[in-house]
Amino acid sequence: ITNRKVFKLHGDLFLKSLRRAYGEVPVIFIGDGERYKNHTTLFGIYNGMFRANADRRSWILAFGGGVIGDIAGYAAATFMRGIRYVMAPTTLLAQVDSSIGGKVAINVPQGKNLVGSFHQPATVLSDTDVLSTLPERELASGLYEVVKCGAIGSESLLRYVERHLSEILSCRPQTLAHIVTEAARIKAEVVARDEKESSLRMILNYGHTVGHALETATSYGKFKHGEAVAWGMIAAIGFGRELGLLRSDEAARLAGIIRKISRLPSIGGISLNRLWNALVRDKKFQSGGIRMVFLPRLGDARILTSVDPSNLRQFLGRFVQSKGELGF
Amino acid sequence: ITNRKVFKLHGDLFLKSLRRAYGEVPVIFIGDGERYKNHTTLFGIYNGMFRANADRRSWILAFGGGVIGDIAGYAAATFMRGIRYVMAPTTLLAQVDSSIGGKVAINVPQGKNLVGSFHQPATVLSDTDVLSTLPERELASGLYEVVKCGAIGSESLLRYVERHLSEILSCRPQTLAHIVTEAARIKAEVVARDEKESSLRMILNYGHTVGHALETATSYGKFKHGEAVAWGMIAAIGFGRELGLLRSDEAARLAGIIRKISRLPSIGGISLNRLWNALVRDKKFQSGGIRMVFLPRLGDARILTSVDPSNLRQFLGRFVQSKGELGF
Repeated sequence: ITNRKVFKLHGDLFLKSLRRAYGEVPVIFIGDGERYKNHTTLFGIYNGMFRANADRRSWILAFGGGVIGDIAGYAAATFMRGIRYVMAPTTLLAQVDSSIGGKVAINVPQGKNLVGSFHQPATVLSDTDVLSTLPERELASGLYEVVKCGAIGSESLLRYVERHLSEILSCRPQTLAHIVTEAARIKAEVVARDEKESSLRMILNYGHTVGHALETATSYGKFKHGEAVAWGMIAAIGFGRELGLLRSDEAARLAGIIRKISRLPSIGGISLNRLWNALVRDKKFQSGGIRMVFLPRLGDARILTSVDPSNLRQFLGRFVQSKGELGF
Repeated sequence: ITNRKVFKLHGDLFLKSLRRAYGEVPVIFIGDGERYKNHTTLFGIYNGMFRANADRRSWILAFGGGVIGDIAGYAAATFMRGIRYVMAPTTLLAQVDSSIGGKVAINVPQGKNLVGSFHQPATVLSDTDVLSTLPERELASGLYEVVKCGAIGSESLLRYVERHLSEILSCRPQTLAHIVTEAARIKAEVVARDEKESSLRMILNYGHTVGHALETATSYGKFKHGEAVAWGMIAAIGFGRELGLLRSDEAARLAGIIRKISRLPSIGGISLNRLWNALVRDKKFQSGGIRMVFLPRLGDARILTSVDPSNLRQFLGRFVQSKGELGF
């Protein structure tokens, strides 16, 4: 399962190798982009599988970015009550984040990823060579999730990104292989201890409370996912500073790494009301206190379960007004 | 989640009790019958849940027969990646079979239950009092699955059905409670040892290889599920006898119990070709040998993985031609 854009870049080579190993390999194409991650595409995938005479012992191979991984994985989770699948992610974001952990889903009119499942891939096959064809902004977007992994789980990964930023941005294969491996390892360790997100797994949502709300409030048109998470981390750093939950030198260091990666689209002009409504409607929202992830130290994360909503709302008002400049 | 037919019979009382315990309990109605177990109904359920502001901590209560349990359970398996649900089955078949074991699914144009999941209910709440409103044929249909449970796992349950048949058919509460408890226990024990049907769970499919094919070949219009399974068991008994896999006294005893329960709709006139095509297209079918369940003794089941297809096809030809009369 792939799309024509990915297939045009890397499909022939991959398919040739697959056919040599497995014989006939039927290809199902889906549309390119988040708006195709819906139930129409899903039923198109099922139909394609029936046409190809797939049965319970068939495998799905998801070849593409996060959208393809999510919907192909969900098809694998539900076709004949679950068949095996392999993720072959082709974006940095998918290699370090969405391909790991078994969260698969489709979007519905009420929101993103609101219908889905937990279904672990049998294998994740990340070839960093394919990343060299990524647009710069797409690469940076994935790198913010690498920084998030470092922030919550590995100070040494953060240090590596600081020191090797130009090699990463110029797609030096060894450097990319290192950050993909480390980020995947950190995420896989967290997921292995809490697959269904009963508690620990929430630390992977560092920067995502505000990040998701920014995406929703701008109808997913303004920010790439990683960019929204980058802004969400900057907000979490600022809010954490206000609450005295993060040291000022560490706050400055983390914000510095994020800002050095690339120039983020501005958050100026975003309505606080829209942002706040999106935030409280998130499926992670718990009435009463809001859950947020904070960093007692870089590389170590804690979940706060009872963040005062009015406190956070006030902070976000100032944050948006100052366009994210909070003086550190 | 229920339908208007079930709700009219038992809804007020149940809802009153639920509201006393939980406050507001939104009700989602779906159509009555297998043809509503599709993705249109599924998305109607999701929409109803969003309208009711359901979130990850919400529960689904499936109140009805197997169709409601299957689709409501599948909605629970996939809504926000899985929420908890309770089965409150209102048919004997659902109480002894479909509510136990976590198999949930919808139908697609290509076949029944071909999109689904494994998602265990938090509770199964079987009230045998509701069974007294069942049509006779529906009650008998469930009883065939009880006989199947006895045949594969408990000779004493078979004996109980033999001895208490008239009390069962007149819905004596204590008698029904015994067979529901025993059948559920047998199924739950098998599922606990092999949830995903890698091997052992297949013994629950005793009588289902031919049973499913009969349902498909008659477009689900002629037989109730239990009736098709009853014919499937009679076929398995006959075929098992031919292969010398079942003692003749035990074959006669099991066939006798099945025939005493009720008069089955005739299998005369069913096309062998249609029956055979349905059988080999079943998702349980494995190319090469066919898997079937046989009984070395009543109460004990074995899976044969390499039944010769041409042998089985010949047997079925004679079976259909003789309208299921095989001389024992």
